[in-house]
Amino acid sequence: MELWYTEYQTSSVGITCKTKKTYHTEKTEYQELALIDTEQFGKMLVLDGTVQTTIEDEFVYHEMITHVPLFTHKNPKKALVIGGGDGGAIREIIKHPSIEKAVLCEIDGRVIEVSKQYLPEISCALDDKKVEVVVGDGIKYVNEHKNEFDVIMVDSTDPVGPAVGLFAVDFYKAIYDSLKEDGIFVAQTESPFFHKDLITKVFNDVKSLFPITRLYTCAIPTYPSGYWSFTMGSKKYDPLETDTDSIPNIDTKYYCPQIHKSVFSLPKFVADLVK
Amino acid sequence: MELWYTEYQTSSVGITCKTKKTYHTEKTEYQELALIDTEQFGKMLVLDGTVQTTIEDEFVYHEMITHVPLFTHKNPKKALVIGGGDGGAIREIIKHPSIEKAVLCEIDGRVIEVSKQYLPEISCALDDKKVEVVVGDGIKYVNEHKNEFDVIMVDSTDPVGPAVGLFAVDFYKAIYDSLKEDGIFVAQTESPFFHKDLITKVFNDVKSLFPITRLYTCAIPTYPSGYWSFTMGSKKYDPLETDTDSIPNIDTKYYCPQIHKSVFSLPKFVADLVK
Repeated sequence: MELWYTEYQTSSVGITCKTKKTYHTEKTEYQELALIDTEQFGKMLVLDGTVQTTIEDEFVYHEMITHVPLFTHKNPKKALVIGGGDGGAIREIIKHPSIEKAVLCEIDGRVIEVSKQYLPEISCALDDKKVEVVVGDGIKYVNEHKNEFDVIMVDSTDPVGPAVGLFAVDFYKAIYDSLKEDGIFVAQTESPFFHKDLITKVFNDVKSLFPITRLYTCAIPTYPSGYWSFTMGSKKYDPLETDTDSIPNIDTKYYCPQIHKSVFSLPKFVADLVK
Repeated sequence: MELWYTEYQTSSVGITCKTKKTYHTEKTEYQELALIDTEQFGKMLVLDGTVQTTIEDEFVYHEMITHVPLFTHKNPKKALVIGGGDGGAIREIIKHPSIEKAVLCEIDGRVIEVSKQYLPEISCALDDKKVEVVVGDGIKYVNEHKNEFDVIMVDSTDPVGPAVGLFAVDFYKAIYDSLKEDGIFVAQTESPFFHKDLITKVFNDVKSLFPITRLYTCAIPTYPSGYWSFTMGSKKYDPLETDTDSIPNIDTKYYCPQIHKSVFSLPKFVADLVK
């Protein structure tokens, strides 16, 4: 018997993956959680029927949401990840030698626990001594921590269910206040092919708060359309002015100094979304 | 009743699309041909069960296989497309003011005829007075036309069935000879996520013939992994030295002068394939 898992990414297109095993399913306080093993992408974390991360392609997302802002900042010491309970962003953050503390604020503690149990390749840094794990509401957290972080990354699910508030301008304002005077904010902002209006809205909201606002993109096979965007708001540092020659060598598979600036060179239809 | 068309892109992953209508199916001399209408991507040309082009995302592939080499060349007058019976590459080529003649050499005349009938948005330039359509074997064609073209584009199907010979080093040598002394060759070379060995092999084969060999990539939602590569062999002009300020304004949706060089900045795992 063959079992295939299909995510309907919109009402009319889906990705279907041959599965080897279902490790775990549960209904948490916040969402449906599943951990399956697929032939193409290895182990896969699925929340509310949406692929969050897989062993084979997680490196793209986790490297790109972290290293682009961290190497744009001159000397990041304290970073915050909102969402990202799988721990992949945290794993990348602590590769930076200047980082002294990385906080993970994830609303659903079960995502953290299941990731620790089944995805050690991704969650491996969550017990690092530089890491603080907070199970709680990211909106509440940033409102209670002002002028504290060098870099804040919003590693959220899609803008439905528990993540709706993470795409609101009030939240971005609270993030602005939670950053230090030269802080940088990055959020995952969906697909340029499938979520055009969202990208335009978030970009304009961030631009209304931060002096420097930039959109960058990368290729993620298991996300809708395979093409994904991140929106950056920065108080001081412009990624297009990063001295890429000074970026130290770190162990990555997607990010490298050679693409630090080029990921901001957008295809015409994407550039038009944020004109 | 809902009908969904699923392409199994590998033995363990597929894309599935809700369909509205099947316009046409036939078994041609060379392959199974289908023309369907999908909700997400509009009309879609399918050959041997593999998505070739769709109304919604065809612009990416057709602009990227043509404008990158054509704007790398200083003054392209004569271009050849091998494969590409839908006419999308030809449509882009004749946007270039310097082009005097564009030849399409497609082995399967039925692809051309069905595209003309059902995909006028893509095939619209095939009757242009600058265009010559040859129904024939691309390998034979280049062997019979020496020192003739400024740019040759291999717009092939996957390296199975009728297209196998289009991924062979002997063919690249014949293309080299079919180009003028400052000619440029580009071929579509599959997905960096799913076809790593092929990319490495083609790159090395092209590099054994051409003084300048470059790999570039783009995002195509309906192709396996959503991330696609092109390999360029050039006798004289280096795309990284193109004066992008001098690129004239043409009507595109993906290609723009701002990405002409940045598409050659490869993620680390892709750069490693062609080291």
